[in-house]
Amino acid sequence: MDLRGGDLSRLRQLNSLTAIRALRETGPLTLSALAERAGLSRPSMKEVVDELAALGWVEEVPPSPGTMGRPARRYRFRADSGHLVGVDIGGHNVRAALSDLDGHVLAETRQPVEPDAPLDERLAAIERAVSGCLAASRKTPADLWALAAGSTGVITPDGRIAFSSAVPAWTGLDLAGRLREMFPCEILVENDSRLAALAEFRRGAARDARDVVFLHVGRRMGAGLIIDGKVHRGFGAAAGEVAMLPESRWFDAPEHLNTCAVVPPGTPPEDAAGHTLTAARSGDPVALEAVGRYVDDLAVGTAAMVLLLDPQLVVLGGGFSRSADVLLPPLRDRLERRCIRLPEVRASTLGDECVVVGAIDHAVEHVDRRFFTPEAGPLPISR
Amino acid sequence: MDLRGGDLSRLRQLNSLTAIRALRETGPLTLSALAERAGLSRPSMKEVVDELAALGWVEEVPPSPGTMGRPARRYRFRADSGHLVGVDIGGHNVRAALSDLDGHVLAETRQPVEPDAPLDERLAAIERAVSGCLAASRKTPADLWALAAGSTGVITPDGRIAFSSAVPAWTGLDLAGRLREMFPCEILVENDSRLAALAEFRRGAARDARDVVFLHVGRRMGAGLIIDGKVHRGFGAAAGEVAMLPESRWFDAPEHLNTCAVVPPGTPPEDAAGHTLTAARSGDPVALEAVGRYVDDLAVGTAAMVLLLDPQLVVLGGGFSRSADVLLPPLRDRLERRCIRLPEVRASTLGDECVVVGAIDHAVEHVDRRFFTPEAGPLPISR
Repeated sequence: MDLRGGDLSRLRQLNSLTAIRALRETGPLTLSALAERAGLSRPSMKEVVDELAALGWVEEVPPSPGTMGRPARRYRFRADSGHLVGVDIGGHNVRAALSDLDGHVLAETRQPVEPDAPLDERLAAIERAVSGCLAASRKTPADLWALAAGSTGVITPDGRIAFSSAVPAWTGLDLAGRLREMFPCEILVENDSRLAALAEFRRGAARDARDVVFLHVGRRMGAGLIIDGKVHRGFGAAAGEVAMLPESRWFDAPEHLNTCAVVPPGTPPEDAAGHTLTAARSGDPVALEAVGRYVDDLAVGTAAMVLLLDPQLVVLGGGFSRSADVLLPPLRDRLERRCIRLPEVRASTLGDECVVVGAIDHAVEHVDRRFFTPEAGPLPISR
Repeated sequence: MDLRGGDLSRLRQLNSLTAIRALRETGPLTLSALAERAGLSRPSMKEVVDELAALGWVEEVPPSPGTMGRPARRYRFRADSGHLVGVDIGGHNVRAALSDLDGHVLAETRQPVEPDAPLDERLAAIERAVSGCLAASRKTPADLWALAAGSTGVITPDGRIAFSSAVPAWTGLDLAGRLREMFPCEILVENDSRLAALAEFRRGAARDARDVVFLHVGRRMGAGLIIDGKVHRGFGAAAGEVAMLPESRWFDAPEHLNTCAVVPPGTPPEDAAGHTLTAARSGDPVALEAVGRYVDDLAVGTAAMVLLLDPQLVVLGGGFSRSADVLLPPLRDRLERRCIRLPEVRASTLGDECVVVGAIDHAVEHVDRRFFTPEAGPLPISR
């Protein structure tokens, strides 16, 4: 069998990707350990590592001070050769986080914003939140490779807000375009519930599952789907909108908690449900009844998703996941009665961070597709 | 860069699979044409083809009689080196079809069976239907590599009927086990709506789409999902059971058609809906009202699937797809009002054949995974 030049450069690319994957998964390795993991001879791996070092993707780790003798050289992936930003554009807060290429969070900030703030004020809060992260890590916008933002609403594949019931002023906005004017890097915009589902899948409660229904519940109701190990966006990027079906009983479900008699008069709307959930935890019968009615409704839309998709796992996330101890037992009970097979039901482990962390993970996956897959072609110089 | 023995045999396997894929997609090819398509030199391809011929997967096509001179040899994939059977176990009929490894149907049979027939009678009908196909093609059970059967109900991953509302006697049956006693080949059992969706995806109305909601509607209501180019089974093989959610309004939807005043007294239950649909086609106002109520209900469960998955395409299949001209315009109208993005809605092109053809396609995919993927390892001798 003859090998053409194309076959050889293809093998070289695959070996480079194998080496990078091994270093990213395990941390620094010696040449011998890396060759062993990649199934290559040590001289072949030396060629691969030298090339990756010349391109800036891999570097030698300096020996620890005080090391005796001449230790074997160890190499690491340069996750800090680029930086990523994740943004969670919520009704009351804008959160931002800065990470390296592996998604390790280096800084986080939060900027409060009024739910009815004008468009420009909300965009200014995004800029302040991102600048705060950069300043805290002594980075500049030029260090950014990608920024991923999560927003409520239906978002078109090119990053416009097609429809937002939560922030009406947002509808029609070319969010990706506005962010592109603000930051000189690649811009990704995605539905916030889908980003939260991605975060639970990559580093949260759903790490061991490939088919997941993520319930993004709090003052608003959303859902994110992981199907066969991938976030399901849908053909028009509008998947997960179960709350838009009146029969799902999702849209108004939180009203059972907001209007409960245990909520003290004058409580701001965003804090009302918390009072009801806290009173239910203490056994207050009025609060428990309101929680029961809320879970009745939550279970209808959830059962629709479970009967349709038969997931391995349902994750309760979003603001109300802090009250998972109150919500999960009655939710499991309702689902058991409605579904053919009750999947495992767990609470989110990321809580309020789920969207901003999911935005980081979305940016990490984007950079991986861009550079670290066989389809991406030969690796470029990293900087 | 050095190449180890493992790398070389791996490359040889990949080249064999490339050659087989090219021959299956295009039909007979000369060595030069095959080498061109696979990106290999002619001598390398000669080695590959000689090996495949020795293993029995590829053979030379005899030159047509009367060909002048010495034409270039052409090779073909031996799709007839194995045979597959698909079975559709319906309430009123058992259908069977026999195909080659490429899924080309060689024979088909149908055996009527009473909806309340005892278990053994239904199994005997399966045996007669399959034997009929084998006899018509002068094959024996020993020629079969795999048999795939479709049945209504929830089917466990190991081929038991966990639950069947349509054929109660079926519930609890180890269908795969019983079929294995009857036929000396690999046995696959799958939900019939999922097989029908697969057939529409591989050779029917959904060939150009990767995300499809298939409505399997007739006397019973079922759904099959294609997500990212694959049939979605679910973690416990129970996906698509939207009819089990009362709020979907699917379970009793056909009653609007069955109980319409235009159905003549004494009509057998299985023919009732047909009368209503025919009268609606002629403009009968009573029948049109019944069809309207039916589509109202059909649209609720369908909208739940569309809002959740945002598919590219909805296919109306099953027995009622013969009346797609009557059903599709009002269904599109209801979905447009309920959904964020109206997907394209089309009628099935396979009609009543969809399940048996889908069973064949399921067996084809099984054999492909077994032999013709990089993960399957080196090709064995084909017989």
